[in-house]
Amino acid sequence: MEIAIVLYDRFTALDAIGPYEVLSRLPGAELYFVATVPGPVMTDNGMLTVEAERGIRDAERPDIIVVPGGPGEVHVRAGGEVLEWLVRVHETSTWTTSVCTGSLILAAAGLLDGVRATTHWLAREQLERLGAHVVPDRVVFEGKIVTAAGVSAGIDMGLALAAKVAGDTVAQAIQLGIEYDPQPPFDSGAPEKAPPEVVELLRSRSRHIGETPDAAGTPTTA
Amino acid sequence: MEIAIVLYDRFTALDAIGPYEVLSRLPGAELYFVATVPGPVMTDNGMLTVEAERGIRDAERPDIIVVPGGPGEVHVRAGGEVLEWLVRVHETSTWTTSVCTGSLILAAAGLLDGVRATTHWLAREQLERLGAHVVPDRVVFEGKIVTAAGVSAGIDMGLALAAKVAGDTVAQAIQLGIEYDPQPPFDSGAPEKAPPEVVELLRSRSRHIGETPDAAGTPTTA
Repeated sequence: MEIAIVLYDRFTALDAIGPYEVLSRLPGAELYFVATVPGPVMTDNGMLTVEAERGIRDAERPDIIVVPGGPGEVHVRAGGEVLEWLVRVHETSTWTTSVCTGSLILAAAGLLDGVRATTHWLAREQLERLGAHVVPDRVVFEGKIVTAAGVSAGIDMGLALAAKVAGDTVAQAIQLGIEYDPQPPFDSGAPEKAPPEVVELLRSRSRHIGETPDAAGTPTTA
Repeated sequence: MEIAIVLYDRFTALDAIGPYEVLSRLPGAELYFVATVPGPVMTDNGMLTVEAERGIRDAERPDIIVVPGGPGEVHVRAGGEVLEWLVRVHETSTWTTSVCTGSLILAAAGLLDGVRATTHWLAREQLERLGAHVVPDRVVFEGKIVTAAGVSAGIDMGLALAAKVAGDTVAQAIQLGIEYDPQPPFDSGAPEKAPPEVVELLRSRSRHIGETPDAAGTPTTA
């Protein structure tokens, strides 16, 4: 079972590594990271470089596709090879998935028109504008398309997908293997739960999330 | 504020990337990945390569040290430069932390003698044998030493540490930024909660976790 995780400049690391840590543990998983061209790819904060093992031309039949989010998504959405590749591989994939603002990329590829989907809470309006039917859920299954909410939601998505692919016992074993018994120190992980001033802080900092790139295609900062 | 995350061959990716995703968002964070020598480091399953930006000789005064776990820890524990470096940088660190079996490395460096600490649930006995006072908690603060349970616990540890370093509001904002409102599909993330047959499955597969390396120093498989 081939699992392709798409990388691009300024992706958010946990969006990709959460699903990786879960899905790589599926029996028979052949997981690889893919980018326009193979080689090093830097994350959104410039503090981490991850290797894309394959170029998209060498990944034509993944069974599962994972598209992470991150401020660089704006540039990917502006058009080009990744969108064309997504349209192509989605035709034969078993599951096409996204985490966080990766859903905006799926939408830009035309895969979410009228489709129930989720995204990072700060990007919901933008995803709606791109044609999806946005629901504020953490993980949304709609046919073979699976979308997850922001960043850490990729872990929950990975486990839910693992259960569909390999059954509950395998998914439970993966969850126990990564000791995923979450105990966050605060209950502030969703805008409906966090203190209003914290929500406002994030909103004011992130007003550019999901914005259209400028004429030069420069990604705006999330 | 310098944050050094230690990489070594066959580390577990999420052990490192969970704390990275949280701590890199601290105000003033200068986070880097460090290894014996700078360059590419492969994870435990051979499916992902991450770059260590610095060699340990170029990281002499990190304020926060994060040691991830993974099957390669057995080799690190067998002795050498990383252990010597840990002893040295722990003298001046503000926080010395581990995730999963990274605690076995801290113990091998002599930093956990009689210290309350946690680790991956499958490595508790081994950590006790290495001199720590093991408690089955998800995150344990003991002076400036912070240890986390298996793999995904590094996210909870990162947030708890962020609160100590920068206050509750900053930590809550980080939690909301990564939308950490966990909704695992099963309640099987701890051995006390998972179905007994799932616990047994993991135990039988992982009987070598934390074992002493053989004479050649070959890491055994977790």
